[in-house]
Amino acid sequence: MIDWIDSYEDRTWQTTDDGTVRYALIGLGWWTIDVALPAIESSDLGEVTVLVSSSTEKASRLAEENDVQEGISYDEFHDGAASDEYDAVYIGTPNAYHLEYAETAAELDKAILCEKPMEATVDRAESLVETCESADVPLMIAYRMHTDPAVQRARELIADGFIGEPVSVYGHNSQPLLEMIPDPDQWRLDPDLSGYGTSVMDLGIYSINTTRFLLRRDPVSVQSQMVSNHEAFDDVPDERSSSLFVFEDDVQMISTSSQHAHEDTHLKITGTEGQIDLRPAFHGECSLHLSRGDVSVTIDHESFDAEREMEEEFDYFADRLLGDAEIYPDGRHGLQDMRIIEAVHESAERGEPVDIE
Amino acid sequence: MIDWIDSYEDRTWQTTDDGTVRYALIGLGWWTIDVALPAIESSDLGEVTVLVSSSTEKASRLAEENDVQEGISYDEFHDGAASDEYDAVYIGTPNAYHLEYAETAAELDKAILCEKPMEATVDRAESLVETCESADVPLMIAYRMHTDPAVQRARELIADGFIGEPVSVYGHNSQPLLEMIPDPDQWRLDPDLSGYGTSVMDLGIYSINTTRFLLRRDPVSVQSQMVSNHEAFDDVPDERSSSLFVFEDDVQMISTSSQHAHEDTHLKITGTEGQIDLRPAFHGECSLHLSRGDVSVTIDHESFDAEREMEEEFDYFADRLLGDAEIYPDGRHGLQDMRIIEAVHESAERGEPVDIE
Repeated sequence: MIDWIDSYEDRTWQTTDDGTVRYALIGLGWWTIDVALPAIESSDLGEVTVLVSSSTEKASRLAEENDVQEGISYDEFHDGAASDEYDAVYIGTPNAYHLEYAETAAELDKAILCEKPMEATVDRAESLVETCESADVPLMIAYRMHTDPAVQRARELIADGFIGEPVSVYGHNSQPLLEMIPDPDQWRLDPDLSGYGTSVMDLGIYSINTTRFLLRRDPVSVQSQMVSNHEAFDDVPDERSSSLFVFEDDVQMISTSSQHAHEDTHLKITGTEGQIDLRPAFHGECSLHLSRGDVSVTIDHESFDAEREMEEEFDYFADRLLGDAEIYPDGRHGLQDMRIIEAVHESAERGEPVDIE
Repeated sequence: MIDWIDSYEDRTWQTTDDGTVRYALIGLGWWTIDVALPAIESSDLGEVTVLVSSSTEKASRLAEENDVQEGISYDEFHDGAASDEYDAVYIGTPNAYHLEYAETAAELDKAILCEKPMEATVDRAESLVETCESADVPLMIAYRMHTDPAVQRARELIADGFIGEPVSVYGHNSQPLLEMIPDPDQWRLDPDLSGYGTSVMDLGIYSINTTRFLLRRDPVSVQSQMVSNHEAFDDVPDERSSSLFVFEDDVQMISTSSQHAHEDTHLKITGTEGQIDLRPAFHGECSLHLSRGDVSVTIDHESFDAEREMEEEFDYFADRLLGDAEIYPDGRHGLQDMRIIEAVHESAERGEPVDIE
C-alpha cells in the first residue's frame, strides 16, 4: 500500500526525459491562455514559442503579457510565418476550425495536438485524420483524462480484476454554461462552429471517451434522448441529453449531460466484484473511490487540478514525439468518438437505437 | 438549521396516535420474520396476531418462536381461520401469489398492505386493484422509501425549489443475489413467480418509484436494454438492465439495475440550481447529500435502517386505517409501476422506445 501511494503519480507511459518540443498555440481563449500555456511552461519537455490568434495585435499583446517569443495572426500562420520557431501546434479553436489549422500544420510538417472533439462532423474529422496520415505528421487528440493519475490507476485496477467483470457504467457531466460564459451567442451554442450540438460534443464526450479508455472496450450501439427548452439553446438539439450505450461484452453504460444545470462530473464503473467511482471526475482534482466486498477506500489528490492534467498531457505528447512509443489517443481514436457522437444524435433524431460502426 | 435537524424524523403525514391495527403476516421469508415482524412490534399502532405459511406446523412454530398468538396454513387462511384476530394482512409472498391472498383478504373485509411489485403482471395487478375496489377494502403497496425521513426531506426540498428545475435523474440498484441467497432455483429467478423478470421488478422499481415520489411526475416513455449471461439467469431476461426514461416536463432519468453485481444503491437528482444525492439510497441508512451553488451538505442518519423504515411504513398504513387521510401509494399508484415495468421489458424486447400510458 505504501508503494502504491508513493507511485500514485508515476508516469508509467514515460519513455524519455530528454529534449524539448516548441509549441505554437492556436486559438487563444481562456482555456489556452489560463490553463494550456502555464501547463506547458511547467512541463518537462515543452515550451511555448508562438501564439496564433485572429489578429497580429491580439497575438502580440498576449505573447508579451505571457513572455512568449512571438504572436502572429491566423493568416500569417497559414502563410508559414515563424514556422522555424515551433515543432508542434496545439489547436484550441472552436471545433469547426480544427481542420483548417491541421491542414496548414501538416503542410508545414508540424506535429499536431488537437482539442476534442476533434472537429464539427465525422466527415471533417475523417479529412483531418487523412490529412495527417498523408503528410505523415503525428496527430494526437487532447484527452487529458488519459494521463490523470486517478484514471490511470483506475484503468490498471480494472485490468487487474479489481471490479471482477464490468457490468454497468454511469457517466455524468453537467455545468451552468450561461453562468460560466454569460453570452447567448457563444460558439458552443452555434452548430456551425460546435458541430452536432453542445452537451454531448462538449461534456458527454468525457464520459464516453474515459469509459472507452478505462474498459478497453468500445460502444456498439446507442439509444438517446435530447431536448432544448431554454431560448439560448434554440439552435442546438441538446441543452440536456441522456444516452444508453451497449459496449462490447454486454457492458451497459448510461450517461447524462447538460449545459444548463448544476455542475457535477461523475464516472462510476460497477462490476461483479467491486466498484470504481471517480467523483469529481472531469474537472481536475479527480477523487478515486474504490469498493470491493465490504471495504471502501477513497483516494483524494486535490493538488492535481486541470492545469496539472494538461501538464501531463503535454509531456505525454512530447514524449511520443521525442521517443519511440505510439500515441494512444491518435486521430483514429478521436474519429471513433466522432462516430459515436454522430450516432447519439442520430438516435435522438430518429427515436430508435443506432448501431455504431 | 437547528429546527430542521431536530425535525428531521418528523412524521408530517401523521393524523392520529390512537388505536391498534392487528396484522396477519402472509409469506414468512426472512424479510417478513426478520424485518417486518419486529418493525410492527416496535411500531406505535400495530401488533402481529397471526402468521400464515405453507403448513400449520411451520406457521405455529414461527408463531411460538416470535411470541405471536396463532399460526395458520395458507389453506386455513383461505377458509377464514382466525379472521376475528386480525384487522389487516401484510402480503410478503413471491409476486405471483399476491392476488390470491388479496382476494381472500378482500372477501374477509380486511385491509391489505401488499409488497411491491404488486403482482407478476399488469393484468393480475389490475385484478388485484379491482378486487379491493369492489370489496371497498383499503389497499396500500409497501413502498417503504415514501416514509424514510431522508426521502421525505428531499421531496420537500425539491418542492421548495432547492434544485431549481429538475433536469436529470440517475438511479442505480445492484446486489449479488446469488451470494445473498445461494440458490439458483429461488423464486426471483423464476418468471412464473417473479413476473416479467428480476432486476427491474425487484431492484429497478426502487429507482423508478422513488423518482416518481420525489419529483411528483411520472415517466411518459422508456428505452431499455437487458441481458442475462450467467446460467442461473437463463429463465429471466434481465440479469442486468439499463433504462432511459423521459418524465413529464422533459426530465430525463437513466437507471441501471443488476442482480449479479457489487452492491450499490444510489439516486441522484440534478437540477438547474442544485443537486440531491441519496447514497446509500434503498437499503436503509439513507444518506442525503445536498449541493447548491458552491455549498455541499451531507446528512447522515445511520440509525434509520430497513427495520426503522418498515416501522414508519406500518405506522403510516395504520394511521390511514385509523384516521381519515388517504393512502398515497394505493393500488392505482402501484399499478402504474407495473405498467412502467411492463414497458421497460417491452422496449428491451422490441428494441425501440415505448410510450407509457
